[in-house]
Amino acid sequence: MATIRKLLIVGGVAGGASAAARARRLNEATEIIVFERGPYVSFANCGLPYHLGGEIAERESLLLHTPESLSARFGLDVRVSSEVLAIHRERKTVSVLNRVTGETYEESYDALILAPGAAPIRPPLPGLDDPRVFTLRNVPDLDRLMAAMTPEIKTVSVIGGGFIGLETVEALRHRGVAVHLIERAPQVLSPLDIEMTAPLAATLRAHGVQLHLDEALTRIDAGEQLHLQLASGKAIAADLVVLAIGVRPETALAADAGLELGVTGGILVDSQQRTSAADIYAVGDAVEVQHVIAGKPVLLPLAGPANRQGRIAADVIFGRESRYRGSQGTAICKVFELTAASTGLNERALRAAGIAYRKLYLHAGDHAGYYPGATPISLKILFAPDTGKLLGAQAVGEKGIDKRIDVLAVALQAGMTVDDLAEMELSYAPPYGSAKDVVNLAGMAAQNLQDGLLAVLQAEDVAQAIADGTQIIDVREPEEIAAGTLPGARNLPLSGLRGLLPQLSKDRPLLVYCQVGLRGYIAQRFLAQQGYQVRSLNGGYKTWSMWQQVQ
Amino acid sequence: MATIRKLLIVGGVAGGASAAARARRLNEATEIIVFERGPYVSFANCGLPYHLGGEIAERESLLLHTPESLSARFGLDVRVSSEVLAIHRERKTVSVLNRVTGETYEESYDALILAPGAAPIRPPLPGLDDPRVFTLRNVPDLDRLMAAMTPEIKTVSVIGGGFIGLETVEALRHRGVAVHLIERAPQVLSPLDIEMTAPLAATLRAHGVQLHLDEALTRIDAGEQLHLQLASGKAIAADLVVLAIGVRPETALAADAGLELGVTGGILVDSQQRTSAADIYAVGDAVEVQHVIAGKPVLLPLAGPANRQGRIAADVIFGRESRYRGSQGTAICKVFELTAASTGLNERALRAAGIAYRKLYLHAGDHAGYYPGATPISLKILFAPDTGKLLGAQAVGEKGIDKRIDVLAVALQAGMTVDDLAEMELSYAPPYGSAKDVVNLAGMAAQNLQDGLLAVLQAEDVAQAIADGTQIIDVREPEEIAAGTLPGARNLPLSGLRGLLPQLSKDRPLLVYCQVGLRGYIAQRFLAQQGYQVRSLNGGYKTWSMWQQVQ
Repeated sequence: MATIRKLLIVGGVAGGASAAARARRLNEATEIIVFERGPYVSFANCGLPYHLGGEIAERESLLLHTPESLSARFGLDVRVSSEVLAIHRERKTVSVLNRVTGETYEESYDALILAPGAAPIRPPLPGLDDPRVFTLRNVPDLDRLMAAMTPEIKTVSVIGGGFIGLETVEALRHRGVAVHLIERAPQVLSPLDIEMTAPLAATLRAHGVQLHLDEALTRIDAGEQLHLQLASGKAIAADLVVLAIGVRPETALAADAGLELGVTGGILVDSQQRTSAADIYAVGDAVEVQHVIAGKPVLLPLAGPANRQGRIAADVIFGRESRYRGSQGTAICKVFELTAASTGLNERALRAAGIAYRKLYLHAGDHAGYYPGATPISLKILFAPDTGKLLGAQAVGEKGIDKRIDVLAVALQAGMTVDDLAEMELSYAPPYGSAKDVVNLAGMAAQNLQDGLLAVLQAEDVAQAIADGTQIIDVREPEEIAAGTLPGARNLPLSGLRGLLPQLSKDRPLLVYCQVGLRGYIAQRFLAQQGYQVRSLNGGYKTWSMWQQVQ
Repeated sequence: MATIRKLLIVGGVAGGASAAARARRLNEATEIIVFERGPYVSFANCGLPYHLGGEIAERESLLLHTPESLSARFGLDVRVSSEVLAIHRERKTVSVLNRVTGETYEESYDALILAPGAAPIRPPLPGLDDPRVFTLRNVPDLDRLMAAMTPEIKTVSVIGGGFIGLETVEALRHRGVAVHLIERAPQVLSPLDIEMTAPLAATLRAHGVQLHLDEALTRIDAGEQLHLQLASGKAIAADLVVLAIGVRPETALAADAGLELGVTGGILVDSQQRTSAADIYAVGDAVEVQHVIAGKPVLLPLAGPANRQGRIAADVIFGRESRYRGSQGTAICKVFELTAASTGLNERALRAAGIAYRKLYLHAGDHAGYYPGATPISLKILFAPDTGKLLGAQAVGEKGIDKRIDVLAVALQAGMTVDDLAEMELSYAPPYGSAKDVVNLAGMAAQNLQDGLLAVLQAEDVAQAIADGTQIIDVREPEEIAAGTLPGARNLPLSGLRGLLPQLSKDRPLLVYCQVGLRGYIAQRFLAQQGYQVRSLNGGYKTWSMWQQVQ
C-alpha cells in the first residue's frame, strides 16, 4: 500500500465528516483537507424540518461542528465555501473554487473521497424558479425559508409526500399556516405499500392538511400569490412552495472526471467504496448501493449508510479490509402522532424485482393491553414462500414502531426466517411489550400459513370472493359491528360459533374475519376441521378498512 | 403417531393456556381438560404489581380469560380450584382434587402437559409464617395484599431486589407508604452486573426507598409491628412484609411420579418439551432450559419462553416438528423513571461459565442530541475475544432501553458479531435515534478494540494504574470537570491537546478519559501515534462514576 500523505475529501457532512474523523484516528501523519461547497460542515441535515417547526428551538443546535472545532479535535483542514470544480486524475489533483474570494487553486491528493451528497430534484416545470419556491436540504435553504416565513404567509404548498415532505408539512402546521400537500403517487411515503399509508393520510387530514394524492404539478404562475396548476385541472393558491420531490445524486464532478456511474445514475463503487478511478473513493447519497434483498443497485440516500460508508472508505485507504454489505432501506418518519417505518422491500418493489413473496398483517398493542396506555401497531411482513426468509416489513402506529422495525431490520440483516421471528426472545414487562410480541405473532402466523394451518384471503380479493358467492362470516361480538362490517357479512360471534354450525352451508366457501385476524384464525381452524372450505381474512376488518380508505 | 383422544394440561396460566389453545387449533376432535389449582386461569401474572401500585386500576383487567370464555372460544374443559395430586403413569391417569368440594377423582390421558409454574421461595426463617408476610405470585396473593393495605399501613419491607421486588417497591411508593428494600446481594437486579445497577440504586433512593444491600434477613419477630432482624445486626420495623426472593419450579407432582429433574431442580425436558416419561410433556417456569450462550441448563422463569414452550408441546403432541431453541434470558424492568434490561450473560455468569469475554461501555443519547428530549442510555456489551461474537448486553436509561436490548437480543439469537452490530441499518430520524445508534457505536468501538486501535483500561483497574504511576489525563473541557474527576487527573482538553504535547512525559504510561469515552478514544489514537504508551478509560468518567457508586 502506497503511503497516503495527503487525503482530500469532497463534502463535509455525514459521509465526508465520518471519513475525515476515521482517517485521522487511523493516521495522524496524513494531511487531510475537507472541501465543503456550502458555508457549514457537519450539520444536522435530518434536523432541518424540526427547526422550521420549532421543536428544535435553536438554529445553532443544527451545527454539530465548525471548521475550527474539527481542526482542534482532529487536526483537519476544513475549507467551507470551497467548491471542487474538477478532478485531474492524470496528475492527481483537484481544482477548487473559493466561493468567497472567487479564487481558484489546485490541491494534490494521494487519495480522494467524494462525498458530495444529493441535491433536491427541481423538475423543469414553468414557474419553479420563482423566489418563493424553496427546497430544504441544507442550512442556507433553511435560513432562506425561515426568513420568508413572515406573519403574512398564510398558505404553503408542499410538493412531494416523502420523508422530507411529510416532516415539512408537520413543521408548517406547527407554525399554524394552511398546508396543501401535493403528491404525484396515489399515496404518501412510497417505501410503504399503499394500504399501510391509510392511517397517515387520515392523520394528515385530521391535522388540517389538504392532501392532494395522484396529483401532478404542471406549472406555477406567479402573481401576488403563487398559483399551482395540477394535471387534473385543480388549481391551488400558495404564498410559498416547498419542493420535496426527492433528491438526485450529485455526480457532475465524478462524471466530468470520467468516473463510471451506475445504472441508477449514482456513482459506481465496489464494496470497499472504490470508484472506477484509481485512488478515488465515493460515499453517501451520491453513490449507488447494492440492495441486500433486491440484489440489484439502488439509490438509497440515508444518513446511517452514509456515515458507515465514510468510515469504510477511510479504513480501505489505510489498508483495512472493511466492506460495505449493501443497504436494506430501513427508514422511519414521524407524521404528527403517528410513526411509520419500514425495512427491506415492499410489495411493489418485490413484484418489480420478480421476487415471490407471501404477506401477513398483524395488529396488536405496543405493550400488554391490561397495562394502561397501549396503542395499536399495524405490522405487515413479507417473506419468501419457499424458505420463509424475511423480505421486508412495514409498521405504523403511535408507539413502539421504531423498536419493531429495528428488530425486523436486524432479522433481515441476519437472513432470518419466520421461524426465527416466532422464537425471538424479546424483553417483556407490561409497560414495554407482550409475552408474545407482535413480531412473535407475525412469525407464528407466518408459520401457520407456511404449514397450511392458516388459509388467508387478502383484503384486496374480498370483492371478487363475494362476487363468486363466498359466504362472509364476521366472528366479532355484536357490539364491535357498529363501526362497520364487510358487505353481506353475517355476524356469528366466535364465542357462540360452536353452537351455530347448522346455520352454515357447506355448499359455498366461507370467509371468516374478526377485527385483527386472531379470532378469525381460530374460527377458520374450527370450521376447516368441520369440513368447511374456509379462509380467514388477512389482518381482519382493520386491514380491509385500510384498503377501503385508499381505494 | 397414536391418536390423541384426550389431552390433560396441569396449569392454566401462560404455558398451559398457550398449549391448550394451540392444541385446539391443531385438533378439533381431542378432548382437552385444563386443571388449574388456583381459582383463576390465564391471568396477567406480570401485571400484579401494577394493580398494587394503581397503574392498572381495575382488578378485572388482570383476568384475561375465564373458564367460560375458554370453553366458548376453544371448546376447552377448564377446571379451576382443581389440584392434580398424582400422576399414575402405568395406567395413564391423574388424580385430581376438587378444592371446592373436597372430592377426588381420576382422569385418563393420551398425552399430559405439565405447566405448574413456580412458587415463591419462602426461606425457613423464624417468623415468616406471620399473616402479615405476603408473596405476590397470583391473584389470591394480590387480593390478600390489597386487603391488608389499609390506611394504617405506613411502612412495608420488601425482601429481594429482583424484578418482582423492584416492581413491588415502586408500587408501594406509588401508594405513599415508606418502603425498605432488603437484598442479600450487594446489588439489585442480578441479571445486570453491579456497576450497571448504580443508577437503579440512586433512583430508588431518590424516590425515598430505604435500600439495604448486602443485608440478609435472619428472622422476623411479631409484635404490634413486624421486627425484621438482619444479619448485620440492623433491625427494621414494618407493618407488612412482601417476600420477593425469587421462585422455585413446582416439581413435586413430577418428582413424585418419577419424572427426571435436571441439575437445576427443574423438570428435565428435551428440545420438544418431552419429559423422561412417555406421553408427558412439561413447559414454563417448572422446566429447566438450555441457556443458548452458557450452553448449560438453567432456570429462567420468563413469560415469553413459557408461552412458546406451550405452543411447542402442543405441536409435538400433534405430530409437528417444533423445537425449543433454548433461552437467552432477555428481561426488562421498570424502576421508577428508569428502565433496566439485559440479554445473554453478564460478566459474573460468563466468568462462572468459564467463557472468555471482552467488554465495552457506551453512553449515548436515545435519539439525536439536537432533537429535544434526548436522554442518556448506558449500554454494556460483552463479546468473545476471538470471534467477536456477542455474548450479552445490558442497558439502563429512561427511554429506548427496550429497543436496544431487543435489537441486541435478536443479534444474540442470530449469533451476530460486533462487526454485524457496526453494520446494523436501524431506523433513523431525529425523534427516534441517531445516524450512528448506540448499538452501532458499540459495534464500532468493539471493532476498534479487536483491531488494536482502541486500548482500554477498565474503571475497576484505575486505582491500581494510579498506584503504578500512570499519568491520568482528563480531556474534557474545564467546565465539565466541576462535577468530578479522577484522582490526580490533569485536565488537558482534547480541543487543545494537539498544542499541549510537550507537557506530557513519555516515561510513564498514560490513561486518557472524557465523559463517555469518545473523546478519550480520539485522544488515545492521537497520543498512541505520537509514541505514547496510552490507554483510554472504558466508558469514560461516567462508567468510572458508576463503579465508584457501588464500591
